[in-house]
Amino acid sequence: MARLRLQIAMSLDGFVAGPNQSEQNPLGEGGMQLHEWAFALAAWRERHGLDGGEVNASTGVVEASLQNIGATVMGRNMFGGQGSWQDHPWDGWWGDDPPFHMPVFVLTHHAREPLAMQGGTTFTFVGDGIESALELAREAAAGKDVALAGGAQVVQQYIHAGLLDEIQIHLVPVLLGSGARLFENLAGAPPALRCTGVVEAPGVIHLTYRVER
Amino acid sequence: MARLRLQIAMSLDGFVAGPNQSEQNPLGEGGMQLHEWAFALAAWRERHGLDGGEVNASTGVVEASLQNIGATVMGRNMFGGQGSWQDHPWDGWWGDDPPFHMPVFVLTHHAREPLAMQGGTTFTFVGDGIESALELAREAAAGKDVALAGGAQVVQQYIHAGLLDEIQIHLVPVLLGSGARLFENLAGAPPALRCTGVVEAPGVIHLTYRVER
Repeated sequence: MARLRLQIAMSLDGFVAGPNQSEQNPLGEGGMQLHEWAFALAAWRERHGLDGGEVNASTGVVEASLQNIGATVMGRNMFGGQGSWQDHPWDGWWGDDPPFHMPVFVLTHHAREPLAMQGGTTFTFVGDGIESALELAREAAAGKDVALAGGAQVVQQYIHAGLLDEIQIHLVPVLLGSGARLFENLAGAPPALRCTGVVEAPGVIHLTYRVER
Repeated sequence: MARLRLQIAMSLDGFVAGPNQSEQNPLGEGGMQLHEWAFALAAWRERHGLDGGEVNASTGVVEASLQNIGATVMGRNMFGGQGSWQDHPWDGWWGDDPPFHMPVFVLTHHAREPLAMQGGTTFTFVGDGIESALELAREAAAGKDVALAGGAQVVQQYIHAGLLDEIQIHLVPVLLGSGARLFENLAGAPPALRCTGVVEAPGVIHLTYRVER
């Protein structure tokens, strides 16, 4: 069956965003540092409509991370905006042509009609939980894998539910000190992992783990 | 100047010991998993007076981690025992011939005479803080580096004080869910890091970082 694959940048002390996330600073204080390795890549820049950039050991990892992905699931905090959509209109952080170019399913408690953007990205808002979002994403992916984009709370929910198949951590050599911790609230029976890949690249180490069941 | 070098095994979710540490279970529930890669090594077994074991990619890392180390600093929780030494006699977890074979400085609030063990290990109990322990260890190391053995709280104190020079994490592909987190209580101004080494080995990834000042 199509797998659910997490791909996320994390500091050495385990944070995927810095403290005090806001509309002005969606990654939180210091959080931008987690993505600098990606901003430098031609593979990343091309996907975001930018010229130039490097080819290095991260290039193959980024390309592989996009291969065989047919849909994306993300949490409301990652999509952004506050409260109900009527009071605070919000179409995401990414402008008219978001870098997903595939169906994206956004977990939210606030009902909203689907939103079609340029470049093939559609945002579908799912109000009835993580299983439902994954099911819809699997249908949309039509046999390809589903990417889990974050944030931390949604990842924890999918781990707890035993629905995550692969964890790819882009481990960045910074200490943020505080913020959103990826591996939190997992006391109980966390799953076993098997390391399936290690790639050292400028400013980041890419670690891939299979979740064993 | 001689450097202070941390060497510690950590789970992917950031724990260096599992929950519910006790005299019967000093590494906490599940904590033994963090050290299985080491137990399998001939290099580790020899140091602990045991025969057999493997030679693999971790061997060179373990050998290098011992090179040029002249003294060790550890916290009271890592040395073990409870409260004052008179009421609860305790000479450490490691038997008559501990695997350090060098001067070891134990941070404690309870005064105690130095303790000489077999094989060249001496335990000196330091009651006046981390700077004092490091100073004594540097003198004893006579130009060699000082190893910081843990646990988590002592490491955090040395990081906060700006006294740690190198962090070597033996990153183990398990999630413990709870326990003693290494990188905790570092909000404020955590130091910048530079990755200086990545070694992939069976059951562990060895990550070395220089603390930049």
